[in-house]
Amino acid sequence: MNTVSLSCELCTQAGGEILWQDESCRIVRVADPHYPGFCRVIWREHVREMSDLDEFQQLQLMRIVFAVESVVRELFSPDKINLASFGNVVPHLHWHIIPRWRDDRHFPEPVWGSVRRESGQAERPSVSNEVLATALASVLDSGI
Amino acid sequence: MNTVSLSCELCTQAGGEILWQDESCRIVRVADPHYPGFCRVIWREHVREMSDLDEFQQLQLMRIVFAVESVVRELFSPDKINLASFGNVVPHLHWHIIPRWRDDRHFPEPVWGSVRRESGQAERPSVSNEVLATALASVLDSGI
Repeated sequence: MNTVSLSCELCTQAGGEILWQDESCRIVRVADPHYPGFCRVIWREHVREMSDLDEFQQLQLMRIVFAVESVVRELFSPDKINLASFGNVVPHLHWHIIPRWRDDRHFPEPVWGSVRRESGQAERPSVSNEVLATALASVLDSGI
Repeated sequence: MNTVSLSCELCTQAGGEILWQDESCRIVRVADPHYPGFCRVIWREHVREMSDLDEFQQLQLMRIVFAVESVVRELFSPDKINLASFGNVVPHLHWHIIPRWRDDRHFPEPVWGSVRRESGQAERPSVSNEVLATALASVLDSGI
């Protein structure tokens, strides 16, 4: 298994504002004004599928994904959380953690579906990268 | 937390052909001719989000999801695996495990996106429910 692919954008670029990282992966914030709190967890090595990781690595990665889910629920109070690992375009293991609201652009479709409406008028929480990063660190660095 | 909701279709119906089940969840096959091998893992109790489970339950569920991924890769040799937990329509915890091919109807979009082409002409493996169920049992009942 190659650990880096020079043609892979997730090997060569951060892929977003880095909120937290360790030796195995990084959490980045996705700059999407329709989905504040949208984060990705990106595995550091150039690995294709979850089943290419060993069991310890799988559980390590999912603990981080679920920690992001908990923090995003706490800070953004969405109606639902969506989790996905696709990698069809960039086959480098990464997870999407997406807060959803009933009046968001695509609800109840996934955010990759067709736009159903303009974003709802309801206020979404405004949370800075610093606040989000601090909340993630407080969960992840406490040794979950 | 209610364990059953009478208005929830995943509490009241199987949601597909049951291939394997234990006290915590069931694996069903999704009858989609474009995506042979498409399976769902459905948590038994009416729980909304992964972060509503305790850590043991989270890891128990993900071990099953990754076992399905391994079996689907082995039997269907897809170009990619897609994993997702949405629940926007049915907010009862369930995971989609979807084998993808470069010439499938939506590639590289998620299967919830717009149809890009008719399915490719390449043969997809034909695997019966019985063979799939046996393969899942051989992994899951061996005590992963």
